[in-house]
Amino acid sequence: MGERTVTAAIVIIGNEILSGRTKDVNLSWLAERLNRIGVRVLEGRIVADQAEAIIAAVNDCRGRYDYVFTTGGIGPTHDDITSECVARAFGVPLVLHPQAKALLERQYRPGELNAARLRMAHVPEGAELVINPVSAAPGFRIENVFVLAGVPAIMQAMFGGVEPLLEGGRPMLTRTVAAHLGEGVVAKGLGELQDRYADLEIGSYPFFRQGRFGASFVVRGTDERRLAACVAEIEALFAPMRRAQSLGSW
Amino acid sequence: MGERTVTAAIVIIGNEILSGRTKDVNLSWLAERLNRIGVRVLEGRIVADQAEAIIAAVNDCRGRYDYVFTTGGIGPTHDDITSECVARAFGVPLVLHPQAKALLERQYRPGELNAARLRMAHVPEGAELVINPVSAAPGFRIENVFVLAGVPAIMQAMFGGVEPLLEGGRPMLTRTVAAHLGEGVVAKGLGELQDRYADLEIGSYPFFRQGRFGASFVVRGTDERRLAACVAEIEALFAPMRRAQSLGSW
Repeated sequence: MGERTVTAAIVIIGNEILSGRTKDVNLSWLAERLNRIGVRVLEGRIVADQAEAIIAAVNDCRGRYDYVFTTGGIGPTHDDITSECVARAFGVPLVLHPQAKALLERQYRPGELNAARLRMAHVPEGAELVINPVSAAPGFRIENVFVLAGVPAIMQAMFGGVEPLLEGGRPMLTRTVAAHLGEGVVAKGLGELQDRYADLEIGSYPFFRQGRFGASFVVRGTDERRLAACVAEIEALFAPMRRAQSLGSW
Repeated sequence: MGERTVTAAIVIIGNEILSGRTKDVNLSWLAERLNRIGVRVLEGRIVADQAEAIIAAVNDCRGRYDYVFTTGGIGPTHDDITSECVARAFGVPLVLHPQAKALLERQYRPGELNAARLRMAHVPEGAELVINPVSAAPGFRIENVFVLAGVPAIMQAMFGGVEPLLEGGRPMLTRTVAAHLGEGVVAKGLGELQDRYADLEIGSYPFFRQGRFGASFVVRGTDERRLAACVAEIEALFAPMRRAQSLGSW
């Protein structure tokens, strides 16, 4: 897709995330992998195991971004409603996928593939399977929506099969500069730099480590030379401040 | 608010979360604390440092939930645009808050409170301050929207002042039962239990630990006796499975 910005949203599905019981790790993992191949994640949603909420999130995001990735809710129990909700979002029936059924038949011993487990072989009509190398029950892709497992190890294994299907843009490059100084000291200069480097994204993130405060300045963009020039100018902002201790750039 | 369900949304603001560079820890922390006082988090959003995205998320959520909590984007640099976006969402001007200015004047040495830092003393007209015991620059509340810092230690300290202002519902109680068995084995029985215990929320979460798979069944609700009865029935589901090893309930 060349110069165009390729965009994505991530939809994390599950009451356990919203109750605070489970800490989501899928969003940051997916975001990092997608960014690496030039797909920019512009939005994340965390939705409950409620049909209307899931359908609304999928429909809202699939119209606005090039790709949508969902995690969670594709297991065998009553609270696993992602597949039927995605089918409803697309207005197609949920159907038994013969290959998915065959994969599950290979996974379980005779008699173990009960009706609940067979639910995991159902996908929206027209969907293609996303293979699950860990525990067989597949995810799927329908148009620009990829439906993945919620268990991180399974989601990550599934993504291995998804990644080659994605058309990325120019990969985002990142350079970070950190120093022991208050953000406020360089805020004005940094704002002026952002105006002059409008093609880059300059982020400023305060931290407090080992009893001292400081800030990381993160520059992101697709042109390596522009990044280097901007980083050099940020470092020059520090120079007059004798108390600032540069932590280097990387 | 008695029997009524009190609801909330959490809006995490920041490109650094969507790039995968920073792992958000605020959502799960806030969710856990809110649930404890009977405020149910029904939705999470992670939005970029883009005005239109922030305004849309705030307006969408504040109309649909009792409370909205935002984190991030209230520092002194150009990418800190949360306060002005919340003002725009409410259609009010961003104004200098005298008490906030006084707090910052106490925090910085003479001459250090520059224009960039003074931005942190601006809040939407009509907002009340949320005190920041760590680094002075306050958050604020406007109607049902609470605007908090992004740095976890600061956000958590701010929440200490917010919590007494919240009217919760009946606290959500949680009981968990775990066993070394596949979810699919008990899925049918579990679904039937969910139908009979419609006032409770039964979640099923597979895990893979130390080379063995299993599942945690989490029951949530406000009535302790109903919870206990449901947990006993879940444990009875395991009984016929000789291979299942109960990991106990808690």
